[in-house]
Amino acid sequence: MELLDEVRAAIGPLDQAAMAAARARQDLMTKPRGSLGELEEVSVQLAGLAGSCPPPMPEPAAVAVFAADHGVHAQGVTPWPQEVTAQMVANFLAGGAVVNAFAAQTGAEVVVVDVGVCAELAPVPGLVLRKIAAGTADFTAGPALTREQALAAIMVGVEIARDLVVAGNKCLVTGDMGIASTTASAALVCAFTGRDPAEMTGYGTGIDAVTHARKVSVVRRGLARHQPDRADPVGVLAAFGGLEHAALAGFILSAAALRVPVILDGVIAGAGALAAAALAPAAVAGCIAGHRSVEPGHAATLDHLGLRPLVDLGLRLGEGTGALLALPIVQSAVRALRDVATFDSAGVTDKS
Amino acid sequence: MELLDEVRAAIGPLDQAAMAAARARQDLMTKPRGSLGELEEVSVQLAGLAGSCPPPMPEPAAVAVFAADHGVHAQGVTPWPQEVTAQMVANFLAGGAVVNAFAAQTGAEVVVVDVGVCAELAPVPGLVLRKIAAGTADFTAGPALTREQALAAIMVGVEIARDLVVAGNKCLVTGDMGIASTTASAALVCAFTGRDPAEMTGYGTGIDAVTHARKVSVVRRGLARHQPDRADPVGVLAAFGGLEHAALAGFILSAAALRVPVILDGVIAGAGALAAAALAPAAVAGCIAGHRSVEPGHAATLDHLGLRPLVDLGLRLGEGTGALLALPIVQSAVRALRDVATFDSAGVTDKS
Repeated sequence: MELLDEVRAAIGPLDQAAMAAARARQDLMTKPRGSLGELEEVSVQLAGLAGSCPPPMPEPAAVAVFAADHGVHAQGVTPWPQEVTAQMVANFLAGGAVVNAFAAQTGAEVVVVDVGVCAELAPVPGLVLRKIAAGTADFTAGPALTREQALAAIMVGVEIARDLVVAGNKCLVTGDMGIASTTASAALVCAFTGRDPAEMTGYGTGIDAVTHARKVSVVRRGLARHQPDRADPVGVLAAFGGLEHAALAGFILSAAALRVPVILDGVIAGAGALAAAALAPAAVAGCIAGHRSVEPGHAATLDHLGLRPLVDLGLRLGEGTGALLALPIVQSAVRALRDVATFDSAGVTDKS
Repeated sequence: MELLDEVRAAIGPLDQAAMAAARARQDLMTKPRGSLGELEEVSVQLAGLAGSCPPPMPEPAAVAVFAADHGVHAQGVTPWPQEVTAQMVANFLAGGAVVNAFAAQTGAEVVVVDVGVCAELAPVPGLVLRKIAAGTADFTAGPALTREQALAAIMVGVEIARDLVVAGNKCLVTGDMGIASTTASAALVCAFTGRDPAEMTGYGTGIDAVTHARKVSVVRRGLARHQPDRADPVGVLAAFGGLEHAALAGFILSAAALRVPVILDGVIAGAGALAAAALAPAAVAGCIAGHRSVEPGHAATLDHLGLRPLVDLGLRLGEGTGALLALPIVQSAVRALRDVATFDSAGVTDKS
């Protein structure tokens, strides 16, 4: 807990002077004031995070795909077999998944982190082996994790973010893989927002009505069993998992402590961000909501965190794909702040 | 008219077999079916346009910024002096505008086309001199253009698109610059959709309520004077201008004839697309709505054309900026279709 407390203590507020400078510069740039809409806000946020105007360009960027399995899979919440988690990890490492295509398009590096896959994975380049457990336990039968496991998974995320920043990355992107992860996400979203499972539980990767009803019931039973206390975020993560959610929480906290922006993907990242926010509310100021997925719990999560998504295109894939679509938008926002001429410097007449 | 008729005749429907192949491939890719949302539709559309699955990657891309002035500026519809059009052209050529920053971020080339700037522009690299007139005439006092001028401006757009495709571009992006252009856009949107000026006239680059009321009245007087017939799109363009709208219409028609995708920017491009659609309805199938601007006429235009915007971030800048934000999304959609492994090839178990 000591190391985590150090990370939490290192998270400070955005730098107001840098934000004011960014706002002032936006108003001098050769464009109508306010005409870049939400991109102006992104540029101001990143200036505040970096403590400088303009902030560093958010590139290179790296997406960390935290992969883990879920014991609640045994409850029949998804038609996908659990072995698909490990198979998709192999697909990521072979460059064959959508996250690879989107990362290649945006020039981001893909790092896959085994934080809890229910299979022995061989060491290969691009894979970081940091397994805390071979999947979580079924949260309808007991806690998904011990507190120690939850803390250890958080610290994996902390360390992965730190290592990626030490390696030179100026922007972090969340990714995730884990069959049944939207079930754990729904439980976490309910625990942290107080919303009802019937509203927060979605169709995930595409399930039928019978499976959906079962999934809602599983989430409801989990909440009834664990009576989660949102004032104890580590306890909530231990109750429901997943290991990737805990790692994502640590990843987000670490990025905020290092004052590097982190672009969040969908509801799995959102659930991790809820845990991070519960541990250190100021961490949210370092987050950018890459997109809004179709999962109902995701919209509620973004509302709760006060984040507006940059992309809203009906995605429900995970892996980091929605966040990667937002990466060039974030980069464009900062590039405009950095490079666009002012009315004075360009000899353009301001409006009368 | 003969050359334009040739372009119109060259525009065919999307290739259904290639679209079916793209849909089938999307369903074999290692992701839940449908999980890429609107990106799947984009990939299917581009397969249909190219007549092949996968379609060519939409890169390199070029943004053509059509610049022109508007006689209706004399009616006091904007606080910006007319000279800003030429000043911004100089800014584009110096690389100092937002369109340059966004193009640099996405690797797109910027080509500036003087199709009607009210100033003598010196020939410099990156500037294509195709001035049809030194701005349009005030449409409240008479036609903005002669039919011959409108046709000539359309053909400028046709030729610019053709030249950019011959130069190797696989994706075209619309850009525009012209003080008072949202006034002409509002008139065109009303003429082509039948909507009322009070609903379709926006605040453009940011005007006060008095100026807005005057702008609505100017659009209403123009429509009353010219009684536009949407069955005569060249006549509508001649009535209201602008030269950049006519050129954009030609650009869109030419792209469709060449079966190269064109990403539309905001309401100026949208008004041009309405003219293009009136000249050749099938041209819309080659269009992608890059974004939705805050101009009210733009949302109505996209509805009329049946296009869904990829980005919706409160922009109201023009220049091609909103479309450029969508470019990496379009490229990511095609790259996924091209590169992502199938369940079979990756050894990933499909859901039961």
